[in-house]
Amino acid sequence: MAEQPDQNSPSHPTTKPYLIRAIYEWCTDNGYTPYVAVVVDANTRVPMEFVKDGQIVLNVSFEATSGLKMGNDFIEFAARFGGQAREIMVPIARVAAVYARENGHGMGFEVTEPVSTHQPDAKVDNPTTATAPERPAPGGKPKLTVVK
Amino acid sequence: MAEQPDQNSPSHPTTKPYLIRAIYEWCTDNGYTPYVAVVVDANTRVPMEFVKDGQIVLNVSFEATSGLKMGNDFIEFAARFGGQAREIMVPIARVAAVYARENGHGMGFEVTEPVSTHQPDAKVDNPTTATAPERPAPGGKPKLTVVK
Repeated sequence: MAEQPDQNSPSHPTTKPYLIRAIYEWCTDNGYTPYVAVVVDANTRVPMEFVKDGQIVLNVSFEATSGLKMGNDFIEFAARFGGQAREIMVPIARVAAVYARENGHGMGFEVTEPVSTHQPDAKVDNPTTATAPERPAPGGKPKLTVVK
Repeated sequence: MAEQPDQNSPSHPTTKPYLIRAIYEWCTDNGYTPYVAVVVDANTRVPMEFVKDGQIVLNVSFEATSGLKMGNDFIEFAARFGGQAREIMVPIARVAAVYARENGHGMGFEVTEPVSTHQPDAKVDNPTTATAPERPAPGGKPKLTVVK
């Protein structure tokens, strides 16, 4: 069988979008709030005013999003930030983690491409009088665990 | 939020069935043959004559199965072994790996409960003149890789 290119391995297509959707569904089925941590680059369309240290954490729950599409190449949706609807587009390659807000359980991924935030051609939305974005639950970083 | 019991952790329900389905879908979408490695116990209904060292590898592809159900507690399907239809039931807890036959890529899991094969009350189907079950591709063990 012909092998397909993969951003992570030359030997097979990536499983990453499938695993992201799996954790998303696990969150939704169990009443948890799915969060996606993103390492922002020029191909990532997010509200840049909420990017901190090159990263942003997005609430991708059904309630927080509109028109959510979790494809094999991109996560796309609209969400309100500070009362204003914003179009979000995140390449799957830029997803560093997907986890439940309530307990931090989920899955982390290496984001291997060079981080290039604040590039001139980055799709920076206009700043708004936005409130703070969603953040992980109190207690610090998500507790990503090894699959057992 | 009330936390639910989990076979792997007391703090959250298991993600395991979601991840198994994710790898299954990844295999199917990419034309790979999904294999499931099972650590057999008394609650596992498989053709015992194909169990080796307490384990069996099952081809769970659409083509090889009938009525496949990949639930949160069990994988269930019918399949032909040596020309005879057999009913298969595998508790999710007994799944040690799911991977693509063609390249060995997939995901492994710890199976922590004590292995208790060949128990008197195991649901052992009658032996048949079956041919050999599906095996991993030449080259040995599946090459389960860390998610990156």
